[in-house]
Amino acid sequence: MSENNLCTLGSQSVKLKSNVYINASASIVGKKEGEGPLGLLFDMIGEDDMFGCKTWEEAESSLQKDAVYMALGKAGKKPEDMRYIFAGDLLGQSIATSFGIMNYNIPLLGVYGACSTCGESLTLGAMAISGGFAEDVICVTSSHFASAEKEFRYPLGYGSQRPLSASWTVTGSGAFVLGNKQEKGALARITGMTIGKIVDFGLKDSLNMGACMAPAAASTIASHFVDYNSHPEDYDKIITGDLGSVGQRVLLDLLRDKGYDIADRHMDCGMEIYDAGSQDTHAGGSGCGCSAVTLSAYILKQLSEGNWNKVLFVPTGALLSKTSFNEGQTVPGIAHAVVLEGL
Amino acid sequence: MSENNLCTLGSQSVKLKSNVYINASASIVGKKEGEGPLGLLFDMIGEDDMFGCKTWEEAESSLQKDAVYMALGKAGKKPEDMRYIFAGDLLGQSIATSFGIMNYNIPLLGVYGACSTCGESLTLGAMAISGGFAEDVICVTSSHFASAEKEFRYPLGYGSQRPLSASWTVTGSGAFVLGNKQEKGALARITGMTIGKIVDFGLKDSLNMGACMAPAAASTIASHFVDYNSHPEDYDKIITGDLGSVGQRVLLDLLRDKGYDIADRHMDCGMEIYDAGSQDTHAGGSGCGCSAVTLSAYILKQLSEGNWNKVLFVPTGALLSKTSFNEGQTVPGIAHAVVLEGL
Repeated sequence: MSENNLCTLGSQSVKLKSNVYINASASIVGKKEGEGPLGLLFDMIGEDDMFGCKTWEEAESSLQKDAVYMALGKAGKKPEDMRYIFAGDLLGQSIATSFGIMNYNIPLLGVYGACSTCGESLTLGAMAISGGFAEDVICVTSSHFASAEKEFRYPLGYGSQRPLSASWTVTGSGAFVLGNKQEKGALARITGMTIGKIVDFGLKDSLNMGACMAPAAASTIASHFVDYNSHPEDYDKIITGDLGSVGQRVLLDLLRDKGYDIADRHMDCGMEIYDAGSQDTHAGGSGCGCSAVTLSAYILKQLSEGNWNKVLFVPTGALLSKTSFNEGQTVPGIAHAVVLEGL
Repeated sequence: MSENNLCTLGSQSVKLKSNVYINASASIVGKKEGEGPLGLLFDMIGEDDMFGCKTWEEAESSLQKDAVYMALGKAGKKPEDMRYIFAGDLLGQSIATSFGIMNYNIPLLGVYGACSTCGESLTLGAMAISGGFAEDVICVTSSHFASAEKEFRYPLGYGSQRPLSASWTVTGSGAFVLGNKQEKGALARITGMTIGKIVDFGLKDSLNMGACMAPAAASTIASHFVDYNSHPEDYDKIITGDLGSVGQRVLLDLLRDKGYDIADRHMDCGMEIYDAGSQDTHAGGSGCGCSAVTLSAYILKQLSEGNWNKVLFVPTGALLSKTSFNEGQTVPGIAHAVVLEGL
């Protein structure tokens, strides 16, 4: 392809030459998320967080299975209509994904970007469609409070205390059917992306992931403004994934240092999904599922109803494992931004 | 983009409309791999498997760092020339990648496909270039014997016995610089891909991963022949990633059942990289690094020297974690095929 056909913008952004439509989406969450401020908006809420399964990991797999099933149903599509599935989760070797979506028999491109994975899956899905590699794809990500605590921190039975900077991993999964044609009931369109770099400020506190991820979010958002030659006021909302209340303050400060004030239009999915005061979730929600279910249930609803016209959606991820943490490594962050516009 | 611009082929393949060139590649391996049959071909061989680091995980990170450094050097490119890095490894939360490539400051799209990750990274990298989302990208994957044993099996100090069906995780990393223009010294071109589905025959033996992955390899290879309306004799070699000697037998049998005999042109990277008899590696090599370093050091050499003209390169992955294994889950497989042609 000649250089003239490039749809790159600036140093790390893409401006799509053709629209990619989010034709349908679905969300499933656990009991606690169902009791939160967005509770009425989710498509399905579990009665308990086992979802009829024997292990937390199986339960998380069932979340992905159900989210994909509902999203396909809303889109009026069958699994075989999907050219690829872009999917990931937080567990080692992405087992929630492997065992969750296996039976759909859709060619799988597994992605990992910690809690930014929802943004990465939409980025790659939109590239696949706009680049002519598919007509329809589906993107799905998930997290589960109990499987994540087991994976990253301590067994739940220990009853470990949590500092106020800690976040609460969202039990939930969001799935998105993307297509090159606008179908009936389409929700929004993806018009561009800014792909994030790893940013490491040297923080090592896995119980303050908001602060660890905020520098990456600030980097991606600022790069987006530069690449697009745009400003905060060009977006109705600038929405991070799961910085929580501590990370939000860091983000706003870092962006002010770079000359951008987004305070009046910043929203964080982790701060929307729970009522931190009454639900004892401290800094807010987190996890691959947090931004995914908030996008499906709330953000796309605002876009499709015309309340917002243009949103910068920036899922944020903390790149740690229990091994890297135990070996004294830092907790670097990454964030991918997706431009969502109304139809 | 109109349907006429689609470059999909059959049900799960892509035929690229523009060439994607592998302009440079590099490989780094551990001591044992350096003593194997391909030893003289690798770009760098470690004197011991710590590579000057304090932990196995850091050592694996340094492999990715060095492979990227060498590949960029051979390509005459700087990190900032790379639009994205498609990278992954086998460790939980892909920490070898995060801590290995962080300082290059290249926008990261993290991928996970177990040992098929090399194929997935080349697939997505080629899509990004051919779709007009980049002029140059770099793809890197790694594995490390000791970090993998710790991640998936038992501490090395236990001295656990290994059945003859077990494979030996390759310590190594391979990096590939892809571009939309053929540069001086270019090695081969990527002309198409077949994206794999998860295939689960219900096997549960994590010490016989060849048998677990062979059905996925058979599925992807057979789908490739159908989608491309091609036959085994259209390829000089059909090369799987790390089936080993047990998995190879299963693959050949399964493909014969589907009407394809590839026995005279099948090669498995896991069987090439060690001398199983003298090196005590049982079924063969495995891991994200196995197919990557064999591709870089051996396969691309054959293609660039004109000894082979067309190769189907099929890295194979086993989708397990120690958690899924301990919870009694099966070990499903996945395989992605990449069509490599000489220049």
